[in-house]
Amino acid sequence: MIDMDRVKTGIEGLDEMLEGGLPKSQAVAVMGSFGTGKTTFGLQFVQEGLRAGEKGIFISLEEDQESILNNARSYGWELAPYIEQKKLAIVKLEPTDAKTTITRIKSELPDFIKTFGASRIVLDSVSLLNLLFESDHDKRSNLFNLIQMIKRTGATCLMTAEVRDDNPNASRDGLVEYAVDGVIALRYEELKDKAEIQLTIRVMKMRRIQHSRRVKPYAITSKGIEVHAAAEAF
Amino acid sequence: MIDMDRVKTGIEGLDEMLEGGLPKSQAVAVMGSFGTGKTTFGLQFVQEGLRAGEKGIFISLEEDQESILNNARSYGWELAPYIEQKKLAIVKLEPTDAKTTITRIKSELPDFIKTFGASRIVLDSVSLLNLLFESDHDKRSNLFNLIQMIKRTGATCLMTAEVRDDNPNASRDGLVEYAVDGVIALRYEELKDKAEIQLTIRVMKMRRIQHSRRVKPYAITSKGIEVHAAAEAF
Amino acid sequence: MIDMDRVKTGIEGLDEMLEGGLPKSQAVAVMGSFGTGKTTFGLQFVQEGLRAGEKGIFISLEEDQESILNNARSYGWELAPYIEQKKLAIVKLEPTDAKTTITRIKSELPDFIKTFGASRIVLDSVSLLNLLFESDHDKRSNLFNLIQMIKRTGATCLMTAEVRDDNPNASRDGLVEYAVDGVIALRYEELKDKAEIQLTIRVMKMRRIQHSRRVKPYAITSKGIEVHAAAEAF
Amino acid sequence: MIDMDRVKTGIEGLDEMLEGGLPKSQAVAVMGSFGTGKTTFGLQFVQEGLRAGEKGIFISLEEDQESILNNARSYGWELAPYIEQKKLAIVKLEPTDAKTTITRIKSELPDFIKTFGASRIVLDSVSLLNLLFESDHDKRSNLFNLIQMIKRTGATCLMTAEVRDDNPNASRDGLVEYAVDGVIALRYEELKDKAEIQLTIRVMKMRRIQHSRRVKPYAITSKGIEVHAAAEAF
Amino acid sequence: MIDMDRVKTGIEGLDEMLEGGLPKSQAVAVMGSFGTGKTTFGLQFVQEGLRAGEKGIFISLEEDQESILNNARSYGWELAPYIEQKKLAIVKLEPTDAKTTITRIKSELPDFIKTFGASRIVLDSVSLLNLLFESDHDKRSNLFNLIQMIKRTGATCLMTAEVRDDNPNASRDGLVEYAVDGVIALRYEELKDKAEIQLTIRVMKMRRIQHSRRVKPYAITSKGIEVHAAAEAF
Amino acid sequence: MIDMDRVKTGIEGLDEMLEGGLPKSQAVAVMGSFGTGKTTFGLQFVQEGLRAGEKGIFISLEEDQESILNNARSYGWELAPYIEQKKLAIVKLEPTDAKTTITRIKSELPDFIKTFGASRIVLDSVSLLNLLFESDHDKRSNLFNLIQMIKRTGATCLMTAEVRDDNPNASRDGLVEYAVDGVIALRYEELKDKAEIQLTIRVMKMRRIQHSRRVKPYAITSKGIEVHAAAEAF
Repeated sequence: MIDMDRVKTGIEGLDEMLEGGLPKSQAVAVMGSFGTGKTTFGLQFVQEGLRAGEKGIFISLEEDQESILNNARSYGWELAPYIEQKKLAIVKLEPTDAKTTITRIKSELPDFIKTFGASRIVLDSVSLLNLLFESDHDKRSNLFNLIQMIKRTGATCLMTAEVRDDNPNASRDGLVEYAVDGVIALRYEELKDKAEIQLTIRVMKMRRIQHSRRVKPYAITSKGIEVHAAAEAF
Repeated sequence: MIDMDRVKTGIEGLDEMLEGGLPKSQAVAVMGSFGTGKTTFGLQFVQEGLRAGEKGIFISLEEDQESILNNARSYGWELAPYIEQKKLAIVKLEPTDAKTTITRIKSELPDFIKTFGASRIVLDSVSLLNLLFESDHDKRSNLFNLIQMIKRTGATCLMTAEVRDDNPNASRDGLVEYAVDGVIALRYEELKDKAEIQLTIRVMKMRRIQHSRRVKPYAITSKGIEVHAAAEAF
Repeated sequence: MIDMDRVKTGIEGLDEMLEGGLPKSQAVAVMGSFGTGKTTFGLQFVQEGLRAGEKGIFISLEEDQESILNNARSYGWELAPYIEQKKLAIVKLEPTDAKTTITRIKSELPDFIKTFGASRIVLDSVSLLNLLFESDHDKRSNLFNLIQMIKRTGATCLMTAEVRDDNPNASRDGLVEYAVDGVIALRYEELKDKAEIQLTIRVMKMRRIQHSRRVKPYAITSKGIEVHAAAEAF
Repeated sequence: MIDMDRVKTGIEGLDEMLEGGLPKSQAVAVMGSFGTGKTTFGLQFVQEGLRAGEKGIFISLEEDQESILNNARSYGWELAPYIEQKKLAIVKLEPTDAKTTITRIKSELPDFIKTFGASRIVLDSVSLLNLLFESDHDKRSNLFNLIQMIKRTGATCLMTAEVRDDNPNASRDGLVEYAVDGVIALRYEELKDKAEIQLTIRVMKMRRIQHSRRVKPYAITSKGIEVHAAAEAF
Repeated sequence: MIDMDRVKTGIEGLDEMLEGGLPKSQAVAVMGSFGTGKTTFGLQFVQEGLRAGEKGIFISLEEDQESILNNARSYGWELAPYIEQKKLAIVKLEPTDAKTTITRIKSELPDFIKTFGASRIVLDSVSLLNLLFESDHDKRSNLFNLIQMIKRTGATCLMTAEVRDDNPNASRDGLVEYAVDGVIALRYEELKDKAEIQLTIRVMKMRRIQHSRRVKPYAITSKGIEVHAAAEAF
Repeated sequence: MIDMDRVKTGIEGLDEMLEGGLPKSQAVAVMGSFGTGKTTFGLQFVQEGLRAGEKGIFISLEEDQESILNNARSYGWELAPYIEQKKLAIVKLEPTDAKTTITRIKSELPDFIKTFGASRIVLDSVSLLNLLFESDHDKRSNLFNLIQMIKRTGATCLMTAEVRDDNPNASRDGLVEYAVDGVIALRYEELKDKAEIQLTIRVMKMRRIQHSRRVKPYAITSKGIEVHAAAEAF
């Protein structure tokens, strides 16, 4: 394969599984059920960029800016200064006001993203975003356009996605996994007759680069997500 | 992680699993099927606060005040005096009269909650609350607003949730587990070829704090819920 | 736990599992698929009361009075004299005539129940009752009101419920198990590679009292339901 | 249990499982997937009565009289003479002409059944009958009325029922098993890694009589259904 | 059982399982998922008849005449001469033009079938035929009438049917298996941890004749379907 | 079987399983979940043709020309020169603009395909194509016509298809596997308690030719898809 520029996720063990990081200017979904650390993954990805001098945008349909800052702070990531320095923008979209939010997504947001010059954009979560649209067709259409628009700015886009409660390999809408260039699955494994839950990570899809197909255990620690690349999941 | 203020649940073994208790001013769901002690959990949480001099509100869509007092009494918790002392308020919402109840939730309830000054609020159950609304969108919208409103008062909010009958890891509506900061699952385990049912507890999600990922057995005793933190579930 | 008055079910082994019997003035569902003896359970519960000098009402949506008397007779319970003595009333509701039956449930039935002075009321079955109503909301609303009304008379209420054909732990409507104070499950166990079906009983929920969480085998004999409390189910 | 009059099914091993035969003047469903011999069971039941001098009615929504006679003939049962002697009536209902057939079921059929004086009535199949009605309510209502009407004539009624393709323990509509007094299940068992299909029979429900709960193998031979009561199914 | 005339399928091992062949003038479904050789089965059945001097009709909703001839040719069966000799007719029905096709099925086809004088008729596939009709009622009604009409001509009718993707024992519509006299299932078996797919055949239903209940492996070879009657499937 | 002309896929191990390659002028579906390399398969198939001097058309509903060229480039396939030489055409269809795209599919596309003279045509993906149509009937109708039209040009047609998230043996719509001449399944195997995902390939259906029924492991390497024909999958 020809070399593709890589973007470090800030999760060391995962970057190893990806042989360097995510492919640059691509869209990647982080898929998992509640409690698997999807938001933490997104924050860590943005924080890694900020640490390295890059700009980032964190679009949230779940929490407001203060809550997000506190969330990051609980992992030791102090994001407030980056906001003041215009290195980081936190965009809050209202998941309960479809009409206004859709207007913002279609008009303001593209302009803002193009102008801000971020190299990393996180969307938390695409499942809440999809809820704003009624038909599968509208969901898919909006998703395609948004991904296309972001990729054209050269930014790498990471979107979190909730999974179906009866299938951890499928997103809630069954759309995003086919629309993105890569899918990373965070899974909550309840092993039979085992008294401990294990969190595991796997790279299910990653266009244009080589990647590991191994299943690795990870933990959510006081420093964020840590993938144990040297350990076996089972 | 930075230190977050903790709120003891009153269930010793669980507070151990949470390394101190629930994170303060957050919203947490207690999820389980019928017979797993969700209401008992809620009463125990309120009782723990009252015992420590805090104020509490218990919002019920299931039972009226007398029934709730009797229920608590069966565990040795005498709540009536707290009501007289204006330390505890029991709010009964009618699950079968959508129009009136929604009006109360949107107008009276916020004012009451803000004025009463409770540090613990229990909602029993969010599944019955959701039934008042017709569309998924309205359910989610109301839920987001209610949680937001309660959290702004500084109170810690605990809501019980029924689970899907074919999946103990998903709430009946599949919404609350994503809307809250934490999820505690009470499960009814029917082990193959075993002649006894085991009740187990696990912390599935808890934003901003570290927590155990172990599965622990618990029992509903004459003193309420007792988690056997030292025992193994299987 | 404080002592609650108990009501013997007439099924010795089950009363043992319940540490004395059902809690008085509560509503309990007996849940099971066809052929597990739900109606027999209801008859046995009424017969036990009559034998002890209590009054009972048996509300049936399945069989008419003659059929019910014959049914009881096949277990050696002669109920006809109790009807003559006004100790027992059998109320037949038409499951196929929604309009008339709903009117009877809302007007006549409450008056009758309040006047008759029964201490035991059986509803066979709540699944057929629910069929009279179209929306989930109406089903739940009617169920809540009926249970409330009966409990206020001081009577203990037992209702039989059909289960979902793909899940013996859930009633057909998924409502009654959450609306009642207790749930007793009768199950038809088809053990892999075993040439005999085993009937098993478990107490899944019983508010306000302590109860066994064991699974016990039972049989339908010429004397009614017999729970083998000393045996193991598997 | 008090003695109930019994009706021999003509299947020796099954009569043994039933401790004498089906309870007289009751309604029983024979439930099974295609190829398990439901129609054969019905023919055998009618033939057994004719052989003993009783009258029978065979109501078919599947095959016409000639086809039914041929079918019986293939087991060595010559039914034509009984028709001539007015001992047997074959009633063909059109499953594809709802309006006409419903009219016949509601008007002609009851009169005919009352007049003919049969002691055995077979309905093949209740699943096709149910297809004539649109709502669950109408299906259940018609079924209740038909069963009631037949039982009042003193005849024993046997109805065949198709099962759900994903659950051999539930009829296609999930109604008949709750409406009848007894259920006999014919099952097609595909044992893992076994190169032969086994047909098994079990009595799942039989009100008012004692019956075996064992699972027995059976075969469809040149003499009809033969239950191997002495053999074990697995 | 009395002797029924038999029709050889042309698949030797299967004729053995059927103790001679299919029962004459009956309707039989061959059910299986894509890739199990249903069309090949139909062609082989027609070819066997032609070889023995019988006439045949092959009704296809899938492929046109040229494609069908090529398909047969790939197994060494040269059907074109039979068409010229008016021994074989290939009827192409358009699966995508419901209105025209239904008209043809209701008017032309019956006349054609009655006049042509075929002793073997293949319908490939009944699943595509059913797609032309909207309601279950219309599908079942058309199917009953078509089968009835063909059987009256004395021809033996074989129809291929697609299966549900989650249940190889049920046809896509769940109708044909109950409407026909016999069902032969072709199955694609994916044995756990085995690196080879096995094709297996079983006779699930065959009215009026005795048949094997064994599961046999088969292969699709250069000579068509070959059932290994002497081998065990597992 | 008579010899059919074969078309090499460019995947050596697979051509071996197919005893030479795909049958010429047929339509074949490559079915798999996200991340199994369906698009890579399509590119490799086109590239193999170009390498051998054939013409190809790559119809994409997923990515635009630049993205597709980059995608191919990552495997070392430089397709741009072929476009300049009019040997390769990349047709982008908008999956989000149903009306325009359907018009293009029905008018322009057939003309273009007939004129261009390609011997290999890839459609990526038929699942996105199907989304443009609302009813199952329209999807099936369009699919049949498109396949028919392409096959008449003599080209071999390969279409990628997404699978149902709960069944890797069925396409999302359950249509394409029955409409095409062949199906190749790419599967993502998550072996129990194994810490590595295995990709496997199997030929599920291939009309008119003999093929292996073995399950083979494959990998997506820097040179495209490599099937390990000599290895065992499990």
